[in-house]
Amino acid sequence: MNEVHVYVVSDSVGETAELVAKASVSQFRQSRKAITIKRFPYIEDKGHVDEVISLAKENQAIIVYTLVKPHVRSYIEEQVKLHQLTAHDVMGSIVASLQEVCEESPINEPGMVHDLDEDYFRKIEAIEFAVKYDDGRDPRGILKADIVLVGVSRTSKTPLSQYLAHKRLKVANVPLVPEIEPPEELFMVNPDKCYGLKISSDKLNHIRKERLIALGLKDDATYAKMERIKEELEHFDRIIGRMKCPVIDVTNKAVEETANVILNDLMNN
Amino acid sequence: MNEVHVYVVSDSVGETAELVAKASVSQFRQSRKAITIKRFPYIEDKGHVDEVISLAKENQAIIVYTLVKPHVRSYIEEQVKLHQLTAHDVMGSIVASLQEVCEESPINEPGMVHDLDEDYFRKIEAIEFAVKYDDGRDPRGILKADIVLVGVSRTSKTPLSQYLAHKRLKVANVPLVPEIEPPEELFMVNPDKCYGLKISSDKLNHIRKERLIALGLKDDATYAKMERIKEELEHFDRIIGRMKCPVIDVTNKAVEETANVILNDLMNN
Repeated sequence: MNEVHVYVVSDSVGETAELVAKASVSQFRQSRKAITIKRFPYIEDKGHVDEVISLAKENQAIIVYTLVKPHVRSYIEEQVKLHQLTAHDVMGSIVASLQEVCEESPINEPGMVHDLDEDYFRKIEAIEFAVKYDDGRDPRGILKADIVLVGVSRTSKTPLSQYLAHKRLKVANVPLVPEIEPPEELFMVNPDKCYGLKISSDKLNHIRKERLIALGLKDDATYAKMERIKEELEHFDRIIGRMKCPVIDVTNKAVEETANVILNDLMNN
Repeated sequence: MNEVHVYVVSDSVGETAELVAKASVSQFRQSRKAITIKRFPYIEDKGHVDEVISLAKENQAIIVYTLVKPHVRSYIEEQVKLHQLTAHDVMGSIVASLQEVCEESPINEPGMVHDLDEDYFRKIEAIEFAVKYDDGRDPRGILKADIVLVGVSRTSKTPLSQYLAHKRLKVANVPLVPEIEPPEELFMVNPDKCYGLKISSDKLNHIRKERLIALGLKDDATYAKMERIKEELEHFDRIIGRMKCPVIDVTNKAVEETANVILNDLMNN
């Protein structure tokens, strides 16, 4: 058998279990076997469980689950044992520990992590803020933002803004181009809330070439040329020198890692 | 002790473990105790582990970890035992199961789930697409998108677009306002890739009032008035009737849930 199946089972959307399954599977990235993850959301009664169990048996799938409804959880445990399947409960033991320390029962309701609470609306506001003030669209955003990102084209400003928005931070981002004078707001705000996104010329050259190809264009346009890239990076250095804000090298960083540098920095300020 | 501490420990960013911790804690939302989650990312050597263990001991914290480096994982297990702490390994048993089925060793490198691979760039492209074609900014996006969302103001079009972008889908969204003729592209695309976002007038009234207050305005502006809302919703029904596309009621749905309806729908098409 050259295919390995992982089934993600949840009585809510299944995001938590899916992330855990993905993180686990990513440790076998170089595997000769094809590992696939399939999600079964809203598994809420025994009938649903039976369907998943029967499919899992057929494909010898590994089950990864987050089930907070006690009767569904105990039923799947029972069936897994009966059919000698492999299953992992992602939250169960943690909830049990919390129950002990809190000296009270969990509410046993699925989907609590997505509850439509105040915090949730704050997140949506932050996401909308990031979209509204993306790519220097309106420089007034610079003054209203919690964080301002500055960088040349293709330094992941937009996805980084969105990622931070999910952490409830209002982010504006501003692209730097030698031909355009940066907005004066950049030199008016507190530099402690600004971050310059630095990148190596080789990496940027590679990314921009890929970008042109993805757009169906030839990869030898000025946009991806080394000469142009160096000019842009020198302009970046000059502006950051005037702003006197911290700089993060994003060359080999995933968006999540850059975000983490910023979040840690904010915590320590 | 009225405070309960949960420590999230990872040799990478710690996102996976944090989500699991949050989902577990959310089951004690009504708890009388204050439960706090603190994240310790990039725990990569014994010295780091010692620091966390000593803090955890002081606060009697519950530790939730994802550690893929074997020597760090075995060291924390050892220390947890020695100091009689409570700790939960989120991925360990799943990785062990995969190892058995795949008949090979995991790569034991942290951060694999965030690796800068092709898939990652596809995600970034999708996020940028969603930002570019947000809020009907450029109707040409409708023809290029994988999914088109249509709805009146405050039906979570933007965060939903972003959420779906994280799933590698290119999403354009178009707001409907009675005063403006919708773009003709809406009637040209395949209606199977369009979704109307329906909402109850009461809920919309509530959300818009909150929105006005958040903006520092009075909550009795036309925007939040029942009469205006009903007019907009009737206009929405008319346009959707012409488009002949599926409609999702988002009234009591979190963005993740609406996204899930769409994702399931796409899978079954």
